[in-house]
Amino acid sequence: MPDVPTSAASGLAADELHALDAHWRAANYLAAGQIYLLANPLLTEPLRPDHIKPRLLGHWGTSPGLNLVHTHLNRVIKARDLDAICVWGPGHGGPAVLAGSWLDGSYAEVYPDVGRDAAGMARLFRQFSFPGGVPSHVAPETPGSIHEGGELGYSLAHAYGAALDNPGLLVACVIGDGEAETGPLAASWHANKFLDPVHDGAVLPILHLNGYKIANPTVLARLPGPELDDLLRGYGHEPIEVSGDEPLQVHRDLARAMDQALDRIALLQRTAREEGVGERPRWPVIVLRTPKGWTGPAEVDGVPVEATWRSHQVPLPGVRENPEHLRQLERWLRSYRPEELFDDDGRPRPEVLACVPDGRRRLGANPHANGGLLVRDLPLPDLERYAVPVEKPGVTLHEPTRVLGDLLERVMEDSGDRRDFRVVGPDETASNRLQALFRATGKAWQEETLTTDEHLNRHGRVMEILSEHVCQGWLEGYLLTGRHGLFSCYEAFVHIVDSMVNQHIKWLKVSRALPWRRPVASLNYLLTSHVWRQDHNGFSHQDPGFVDHVLNKSPEVVRVYLPPDANTLLCVADHVLRSRDYVNVVVAGKQPCFDWLDLDQARAHCARGAGSWDWAGTENGTGEPDVVLACAGDVPTQEVLAAAGILRRHLPDVAVRVVNVVDMTRLLPRKEHPHGMPDAEFDALFTRDRPVIFAYHGYPWLVHRLAYRRTVHPELHVRGYLESGTTTTPFDMVVRNDLDRYRLVMDVIDRTPGLGVRAVAVRQRMQDARTRHHAWIREHGTDMPEVAEWSWSG
Amino acid sequence: MPDVPTSAASGLAADELHALDAHWRAANYLAAGQIYLLANPLLTEPLRPDHIKPRLLGHWGTSPGLNLVHTHLNRVIKARDLDAICVWGPGHGGPAVLAGSWLDGSYAEVYPDVGRDAAGMARLFRQFSFPGGVPSHVAPETPGSIHEGGELGYSLAHAYGAALDNPGLLVACVIGDGEAETGPLAASWHANKFLDPVHDGAVLPILHLNGYKIANPTVLARLPGPELDDLLRGYGHEPIEVSGDEPLQVHRDLARAMDQALDRIALLQRTAREEGVGERPRWPVIVLRTPKGWTGPAEVDGVPVEATWRSHQVPLPGVRENPEHLRQLERWLRSYRPEELFDDDGRPRPEVLACVPDGRRRLGANPHANGGLLVRDLPLPDLERYAVPVEKPGVTLHEPTRVLGDLLERVMEDSGDRRDFRVVGPDETASNRLQALFRATGKAWQEETLTTDEHLNRHGRVMEILSEHVCQGWLEGYLLTGRHGLFSCYEAFVHIVDSMVNQHIKWLKVSRALPWRRPVASLNYLLTSHVWRQDHNGFSHQDPGFVDHVLNKSPEVVRVYLPPDANTLLCVADHVLRSRDYVNVVVAGKQPCFDWLDLDQARAHCARGAGSWDWAGTENGTGEPDVVLACAGDVPTQEVLAAAGILRRHLPDVAVRVVNVVDMTRLLPRKEHPHGMPDAEFDALFTRDRPVIFAYHGYPWLVHRLAYRRTVHPELHVRGYLESGTTTTPFDMVVRNDLDRYRLVMDVIDRTPGLGVRAVAVRQRMQDARTRHHAWIREHGTDMPEVAEWSWSG
Repeated sequence: MPDVPTSAASGLAADELHALDAHWRAANYLAAGQIYLLANPLLTEPLRPDHIKPRLLGHWGTSPGLNLVHTHLNRVIKARDLDAICVWGPGHGGPAVLAGSWLDGSYAEVYPDVGRDAAGMARLFRQFSFPGGVPSHVAPETPGSIHEGGELGYSLAHAYGAALDNPGLLVACVIGDGEAETGPLAASWHANKFLDPVHDGAVLPILHLNGYKIANPTVLARLPGPELDDLLRGYGHEPIEVSGDEPLQVHRDLARAMDQALDRIALLQRTAREEGVGERPRWPVIVLRTPKGWTGPAEVDGVPVEATWRSHQVPLPGVRENPEHLRQLERWLRSYRPEELFDDDGRPRPEVLACVPDGRRRLGANPHANGGLLVRDLPLPDLERYAVPVEKPGVTLHEPTRVLGDLLERVMEDSGDRRDFRVVGPDETASNRLQALFRATGKAWQEETLTTDEHLNRHGRVMEILSEHVCQGWLEGYLLTGRHGLFSCYEAFVHIVDSMVNQHIKWLKVSRALPWRRPVASLNYLLTSHVWRQDHNGFSHQDPGFVDHVLNKSPEVVRVYLPPDANTLLCVADHVLRSRDYVNVVVAGKQPCFDWLDLDQARAHCARGAGSWDWAGTENGTGEPDVVLACAGDVPTQEVLAAAGILRRHLPDVAVRVVNVVDMTRLLPRKEHPHGMPDAEFDALFTRDRPVIFAYHGYPWLVHRLAYRRTVHPELHVRGYLESGTTTTPFDMVVRNDLDRYRLVMDVIDRTPGLGVRAVAVRQRMQDARTRHHAWIREHGTDMPEVAEWSWSG
Repeated sequence: MPDVPTSAASGLAADELHALDAHWRAANYLAAGQIYLLANPLLTEPLRPDHIKPRLLGHWGTSPGLNLVHTHLNRVIKARDLDAICVWGPGHGGPAVLAGSWLDGSYAEVYPDVGRDAAGMARLFRQFSFPGGVPSHVAPETPGSIHEGGELGYSLAHAYGAALDNPGLLVACVIGDGEAETGPLAASWHANKFLDPVHDGAVLPILHLNGYKIANPTVLARLPGPELDDLLRGYGHEPIEVSGDEPLQVHRDLARAMDQALDRIALLQRTAREEGVGERPRWPVIVLRTPKGWTGPAEVDGVPVEATWRSHQVPLPGVRENPEHLRQLERWLRSYRPEELFDDDGRPRPEVLACVPDGRRRLGANPHANGGLLVRDLPLPDLERYAVPVEKPGVTLHEPTRVLGDLLERVMEDSGDRRDFRVVGPDETASNRLQALFRATGKAWQEETLTTDEHLNRHGRVMEILSEHVCQGWLEGYLLTGRHGLFSCYEAFVHIVDSMVNQHIKWLKVSRALPWRRPVASLNYLLTSHVWRQDHNGFSHQDPGFVDHVLNKSPEVVRVYLPPDANTLLCVADHVLRSRDYVNVVVAGKQPCFDWLDLDQARAHCARGAGSWDWAGTENGTGEPDVVLACAGDVPTQEVLAAAGILRRHLPDVAVRVVNVVDMTRLLPRKEHPHGMPDAEFDALFTRDRPVIFAYHGYPWLVHRLAYRRTVHPELHVRGYLESGTTTTPFDMVVRNDLDRYRLVMDVIDRTPGLGVRAVAVRQRMQDARTRHHAWIREHGTDMPEVAEWSWSG
């Protein structure tokens, strides 16, 4: 570990100090103006009630702190010609981030009608939190942002995701002290154990302790200083503290702290890159203590507001009705001396802009914060090289995710120079059978290694930490800055990031409507170790509801695939890795699974998203089935095929059509999802009036929710997971949930009229098989040979 | 802060040391036996393949460490007559916790056929991870447990929840080093800032660093010692480290560490209770470093297993087929010298049981871990005192949650002596208008307070931390140990705990089937600050999908209520606070809302769960509506009432029935939910064939998913939230999502045949009103006076 200079370069010259303060005052003025003003933006006349917005919405409290960071990041970016973005954790401070972007001119480049002049300032103020305007929070609409920040907790993981494989990038990250109480943020501190000082950029966390949340003090702000210091050192950081409420002194101190931090970062990177990585670097963290609502009203109606929780939203709530509040607002706004900051046309004066960098160096214009500008197509190999040969369906077995692993190895290998592809997961890459990846790369790890470790590597591009939150945050940050990736996760535990994927889907939905935001690579989930195969675990590991969760969200963004075998998984993976601006959920097994389709068949089937498997049915070309056996998911497909086999053998006169669904959104009406099947196509595939027995991977009502508008819906009968689980055998799981082959045959018999006495006997036989199953597993603890040894062609 | 003795009492006598080791060896033997053995439990004959289970399932790696803690907790409980429970974070170590419970005799008390003898041991072994047996993880079936541990991350929050208001209780909590990487666990460390040393018990975290997860080293195990020490001190703890792989020395060290920790805890509590609370105590934490899979096979097939990730599940996988593995297993099992541990009848010898406490002091039998044994009914006041007067519907306005706050104040007050009621939430109690609570109690807080703080109190029973995970964990731990509570949360952000509520619902479902587990108080959510009223925030704060999420789960456990006004909210709150073993989701607004029902009407309406509001409709006693306008949720109810008013005025000949649904599960078929409405009742309320326009609070397809089996379903047309949101006015939100009164009137006109030319004119008028709305809000930023000033009776 090299020595780091203890005193950094910056002693601010007086004019630089005053220019910084001017920028900060301008930003504070603009932030307050957005919250309050409908008109009279430059205060060219005394403030009147009709200048004030009728609804006062927004968050002032965090804004002066964010502005301060913005000002000082401007300074160091310009002084050091840094390539830098900032993740603003307290995203409710939208007025601040908008102010910074308006000041650096990037806002007007994206929104020309909000120019850097009086008319533009008036629009900037009016549009904020106004119907038809811009949201109250940092949002996709905000230039320079990759982070909404409305739901607190993800800033630091986003920042690390952005820094990965961007060796020249600095990612500053403001962490609010409220946000710091969340679990995801608390876990993200340890992301520094995965940051490669050679191939990755740097993250500079700025822990902003303004003391209060909505109504309470924050835990970290009230820690005794040495305890907080211990905590940050325990997180592996070297803390640099700046504290105060006297602006000029805080400017001096923060400038010095920033220089110190950046000198240290530069030294750590240079050392690692020139001399090779030694021990894990102790990266700097800045602790910034400034008052909440700083420079706002000190007291309102006799109670303290500045430096308290009362400044969280709108410190003066009654401005339109209360003349004293109006006077106080005017005093407050004039305290920034706007006439010194803006010329008569509302343009920021040169002193205000002295610290602002140029062009793509501006925080509002850095292309890393609009990753679609940078993203390149992944080098994806021909699937032929990875497909498994299938002479006949249902004879050979492969572990689908293992087959996928070989493909991913190639992608990882071929992106080795570009370093724009990562796989993340909570300690499950090998458990999920993707270990072929480790032939192409290692698992990122900067801590000590022992001889008993495997595949750890300082420069690895597989990311494993036992935190789904951090995995998700890393990947989001990585994708939004223009790279590609895959999140491999246990199906049940992906619910841990339900709320994070909500926010990412919302981000993509809004981004898609902004022409200047270029499309980014999709967020791809591979959910394996799924509900039906939790042999080692049990009930707590059985939950297929993530699909339901994402299908509640904007249909233009979400897609769900359930490939039934290895080759279909390859086709789906190829498809989703090429796609842009989606959240793709792929559910696939890691256990040995019959191969049903060869590569050409798989391609055709996946292109359709759902189709009849004529070879499995008994329609014999009539095109008039008596019954449809439908399936989605690997285990349901196997049970449906087994049921079809029983029917073929024992009730050969029943015309059965077997339909497999890969893309669940095809079941939706066309007007509700871009993939939705037109009614005519749906009716042709599922019939208009025949019984449809649908074996579905997850909760059965999802299929009803997707298909309730279809003509055949009254005849639709769905089997799926019914929350009946425990540690047991694979076949017992399907029996417990009435998804087994015997039950499906009984369903066919029960729902198809006129099958006669032979069907009654077959039904009894099915009942007997289920009884036999129960007796067998209690005795042997395994599945019956007739199940365990079954194959379609056997 | 008092001085704490630096050297604790324990120097173990030789016989005590050997007895502890005997208990530990016995537990290890029993854990391994559960994973492997079908028969020959005492190894009375040489091990043969047919003694081995056909499927080897379970997790050995963590088990020896859990056993070690179990042994040593036994010792200190007995020596100090402690009232203690343990939360086993690495819940996959089921074999260990089962072994401890079998050894202390509590297992046989609950499951008499699994007695402490050879036959019982044989059953203990066979049943583990065997179909029809017991799950692989710690589970509700496990005596002494309140924590499943399958989904890692919640142990420490559960432990704190259990300790709250249990001043005599010690809650030990084993935290695995894998679990320690999760966000919820990382956030939970700071729970010590909320633990009252006077009225709460103590939590003793035991961070078990066994070095590896499934396939990777753990972040915390590889931290340099001083860095980990900093981290734990930064968390506010005083670390005590025990490290080793030589059993007798580790026993000595752990005994000493436990004594030291417990002495310190006793001193801290005594000081606080006798001298008053001074500064925040620095509670001890034990750091226990022992090898993963300790005492298991050191190497298998030439690669190291003990002390590596390879011991995570089943260290010897091929025992049935591979004679060398079989021999190795036998050597391993005999290494514990079972003949010294168990007599010929399989009973543990006295030395093994020497450390085991008696009766309810045993970890498997402590009633705090079966909270239903301890729970008392909450003292709930008469609702009359809190109900708002309603002379006529739709005239007066109240904030429903504020009215509820007055009721909760009384409950908090009346439970003041018992201290068995807490309200948790992420910094939103006041924001959610429940601030009346602060007249009865404060917000728990042990850090420094300033004059600008409000309602903070060392002994408060409102718990606020900006972590939904910790809030949920606290409440789960509190309820499962026999107390009551409420979680007040922003609707959108309750998704943060989706996976936690999954696990709690699964816990309750399994518990309900176990006669010895007594019912506990329900987990009650109050979701407010809901999707329709995110005026200050916007799109990221708009998500009504939690209802969908919980309704995927076991129907016997989950219930969902959407009270439309203040009095119905009171009735629902009264109901859920009395209930047991449910998860109740209550969605209610905090904004001013019309009062529709007086208390008697509200009671009757809530008792039915759904009913016609005859006063709002225009059936005029015919019982034959032309159309049904249904609603669920406060905002949809207001829009439906407004639509009904328009229809009454402009199309008085249309017979409209207004139906309000409070209990969403009433829409389900009877056989799918205990609250499900019989078809005849449903048909009578919603008709069999009239158009039903249903304005629902959340995603509209949920109503279809619940009602698709009903006769009227083809006529059911649902309006709800369509992910169309931003920062805007309340009425603009409903217009954007086609849930507004004008759209609903248009829906009625479009779906009711034969309304004639007058309806065409009304429809145009509605269209015009929507156009007028759009123009108005863009101009004024507020809702039109005709909307803002509307009232039912106006």
